[in-house]
Amino acid sequence: MAHQVDLNADMGESFGPWKMGDDAALLKIVTSANVACGFHAGDWDVMATTMAQAVENGVGIGAHPGFADLHGFGRQRMHYPLPSLQNLIRYQVGAAQAMARAAGGQVRHLKLHGALANMASEDQAMARACYEAALSVAPDLIIMVLAGTAQQRAARDLGCPVACEIFADRAYNDDATLVDRSLPGAVIHDPDRAAARMVEMVKTGAIITESGKHIPTRIDTICLHGDTPTAVKIAARVRQALQESGVELGPFDGGPA
Amino acid sequence: MAHQVDLNADMGESFGPWKMGDDAALLKIVTSANVACGFHAGDWDVMATTMAQAVENGVGIGAHPGFADLHGFGRQRMHYPLPSLQNLIRYQVGAAQAMARAAGGQVRHLKLHGALANMASEDQAMARACYEAALSVAPDLIIMVLAGTAQQRAARDLGCPVACEIFADRAYNDDATLVDRSLPGAVIHDPDRAAARMVEMVKTGAIITESGKHIPTRIDTICLHGDTPTAVKIAARVRQALQESGVELGPFDGGPA
Amino acid sequence: MAHQVDLNADMGESFGPWKMGDDAALLKIVTSANVACGFHAGDWDVMATTMAQAVENGVGIGAHPGFADLHGFGRQRMHYPLPSLQNLIRYQVGAAQAMARAAGGQVRHLKLHGALANMASEDQAMARACYEAALSVAPDLIIMVLAGTAQQRAARDLGCPVACEIFADRAYNDDATLVDRSLPGAVIHDPDRAAARMVEMVKTGAIITESGKHIPTRIDTICLHGDTPTAVKIAARVRQALQESGVELGPFDGGPA
Amino acid sequence: MAHQVDLNADMGESFGPWKMGDDAALLKIVTSANVACGFHAGDWDVMATTMAQAVENGVGIGAHPGFADLHGFGRQRMHYPLPSLQNLIRYQVGAAQAMARAAGGQVRHLKLHGALANMASEDQAMARACYEAALSVAPDLIIMVLAGTAQQRAARDLGCPVACEIFADRAYNDDATLVDRSLPGAVIHDPDRAAARMVEMVKTGAIITESGKHIPTRIDTICLHGDTPTAVKIAARVRQALQESGVELGPFDGGPA
Repeated sequence: MAHQVDLNADMGESFGPWKMGDDAALLKIVTSANVACGFHAGDWDVMATTMAQAVENGVGIGAHPGFADLHGFGRQRMHYPLPSLQNLIRYQVGAAQAMARAAGGQVRHLKLHGALANMASEDQAMARACYEAALSVAPDLIIMVLAGTAQQRAARDLGCPVACEIFADRAYNDDATLVDRSLPGAVIHDPDRAAARMVEMVKTGAIITESGKHIPTRIDTICLHGDTPTAVKIAARVRQALQESGVELGPFDGGPA
Repeated sequence: MAHQVDLNADMGESFGPWKMGDDAALLKIVTSANVACGFHAGDWDVMATTMAQAVENGVGIGAHPGFADLHGFGRQRMHYPLPSLQNLIRYQVGAAQAMARAAGGQVRHLKLHGALANMASEDQAMARACYEAALSVAPDLIIMVLAGTAQQRAARDLGCPVACEIFADRAYNDDATLVDRSLPGAVIHDPDRAAARMVEMVKTGAIITESGKHIPTRIDTICLHGDTPTAVKIAARVRQALQESGVELGPFDGGPA
Repeated sequence: MAHQVDLNADMGESFGPWKMGDDAALLKIVTSANVACGFHAGDWDVMATTMAQAVENGVGIGAHPGFADLHGFGRQRMHYPLPSLQNLIRYQVGAAQAMARAAGGQVRHLKLHGALANMASEDQAMARACYEAALSVAPDLIIMVLAGTAQQRAARDLGCPVACEIFADRAYNDDATLVDRSLPGAVIHDPDRAAARMVEMVKTGAIITESGKHIPTRIDTICLHGDTPTAVKIAARVRQALQESGVELGPFDGGPA
Repeated sequence: MAHQVDLNADMGESFGPWKMGDDAALLKIVTSANVACGFHAGDWDVMATTMAQAVENGVGIGAHPGFADLHGFGRQRMHYPLPSLQNLIRYQVGAAQAMARAAGGQVRHLKLHGALANMASEDQAMARACYEAALSVAPDLIIMVLAGTAQQRAARDLGCPVACEIFADRAYNDDATLVDRSLPGAVIHDPDRAAARMVEMVKTGAIITESGKHIPTRIDTICLHGDTPTAVKIAARVRQALQESGVELGPFDGGPA
């Protein structure tokens, strides 16, 4: 049976006069782009440019909402009543839809950013509230979730289309959580090692932990990064290795969770 | 022949912990609400609340985009290349659409705010760029224009549905421009006088200037204010006078300009 | 022996076009004003106006720094490395010094705002870092601390001038902490009751808890509020009752903690 | 007679997660640093880091205030009543003083940024208001002015210490104004040519225009840029050429205008 996987990366994270990341390079590598929506990063022009480039490259567009914390890049945990959190999500998804439409595309998926994503990974009710809010605005959205977390459970409960994500450059614990960044080996810097792991995980349909344990997992998409030259190299190497091993690359279809 | 006119007011101009205006009172008076979109005023929660209240009151919802100048309430003139200006408009209209949809309503019209509106009143190309951007995102929008200005000419050229607006509380010069605010009599503070003028203008289909001149004008909607207790009184008096004189109140239908 | 106490309130919390609180009324009641520094509230004009009014009324000026969270009014807990937190404090204190100098006054005290204050009440190292940062910029500052909390312990350790604060409108638990706002009786709405409590606490030099327990405490200043008409009434009543009972009102002298 | 000149550059223009410019390289070249104050660029941490590096490198620290227009990098012309403009300046200068003090330095000069500088170059009353505001907060400031503009005239009228500035990489018209950026030759990209011009201007004490005309001018400092690798090369070449030709480099002394 043929294996297929999507490659996604955060994008459109420049703001006003400040540039971030190498979106042009990443758009040649990924099949889905998570576009910042102007709260933690991005602005109306950055969104327009990024989405137009995504359309040109045949890359799927995702809304990537975050907390309204520009200075902190959406990494401060902010606590809102769920209805407010839902309004925050709706606003950003709506803005993204408009920008995508004007760029000749459409918002195909949702991925939460930063502290918002981290909190939703731990809190199923919060994740569900976010997803319901996004779907209330864009009913055909595919919800991108971090495999094995409360995000995935929330999407499964909702019964919405989902895409399960694993990380190319992060080591996993035996309970499928990520190894804490402060520990040695948590982040994988070697492109070949990252690439080999991804090929194996996609082909076996399992997260492979630091200890070698296989945790069977639905894998629809691999999260890549483009914020450093090294990150872009890892991304390119992962793509190449997957293609060489016969894995097809392309946007997820959003089968039910 | 029966006369009909719409009454509109800016709304949803609170932000975070700060309140502005008496939206609840205004929503009992107007038939269209211009809802701030989070750039010059408003936020995700304020938009949600205001739009939900508009839906409850059967009041038409409008997107009311402004410049990204929260501190200055969108009153600083900001100069952007037209494509950037269009992105700025699209972003806000898209956000408004999402919030309206979640509130069980929809964005029915567009009205530009503050310095953005002032600049568009003088610059037809700029007005047209704004309207095209809004329509690219929401093709069924009715464009609310200030009667007799470059806004109206831009909408006429575009051939889009429009609603022509006059002011209840501002005196007019003989060329249909507003009397400068710094001049005596520019702003009308007497509810009865404001109301009598509006009835006459609507019934005669003309702007009546300070000198008494009648300038035949399409009049679809009257702009009211709610930022002071006096403003709310004027708004209520205008509504009452129009009803007593047999003018029907209700949302404009957006006939072509 | 004569008793003396200071009355303080947060002030200068308007922003751009949005007004908050009745500063003019409060400045007739308090002897110290905690002026927002433009991060969670206030702006350059609001600070200038508020400080000029404080000088006119002979009210002591305090810098009231908060987190850079305008939309949330500084109430979101934000986590920074201590050196960053110190930079955040220094920036705001420096801005306040400049504005006070231009108003013909000077920044006499420091009081932390919102979530920043709450976190410092629980975390002595954080409180100390904030106070050291403020003192590095303004060595003569008197540090206003919440009596009985980590704020007070941090200031005591530092050996800096301090002013210990109690709340006029909040009930206390037997360990000197505030009764949680969600519990009945936590907030005192009756001006007479608030006033009587304050007179007794100041005269006995003790916090008096809900159960009637007396906890001997240094009391230099009483925190009043002005964000609602009721709050202003309580503030005025507390002032009147203290004066009638022979307590002198005036700025604290910042004796060592 | 020995010639001496200062070299200045804008610095500290990063914000939150976004980096801008190569401050470390520039600090090896310049003798004065114009540090953004958090309104158009910079933040509390960026200011602290930049100022600490300036102190380490023996580079003079300047406050570089701009309009509160982060997205537009202070390049939008904003119109304020002069007292508000003065508050805006004071706030930023005060913040800069605090950060400089904590870094073991002090704010030695003031230079206006972006649209604020452009407007002050054309409007002497506005320039004067800005300078008076800055001096009201920091009486010993040296005011850096663009030679030949309303900035210089305002400082001369005030009688305050000043440093007159010319541009290394911009061509001049015969009336001492800069050649419009849209015209060919307006910006000088050749390091050798920029360096040769600067040596000649400093040695002759004159602005040399495109047509070859010499306009005698007080020259205290040369404005360099560091926002591109080319700009850093020009800066380094200008420094080298000045040193090779016997011009001493060092901070201006702020003689009266």
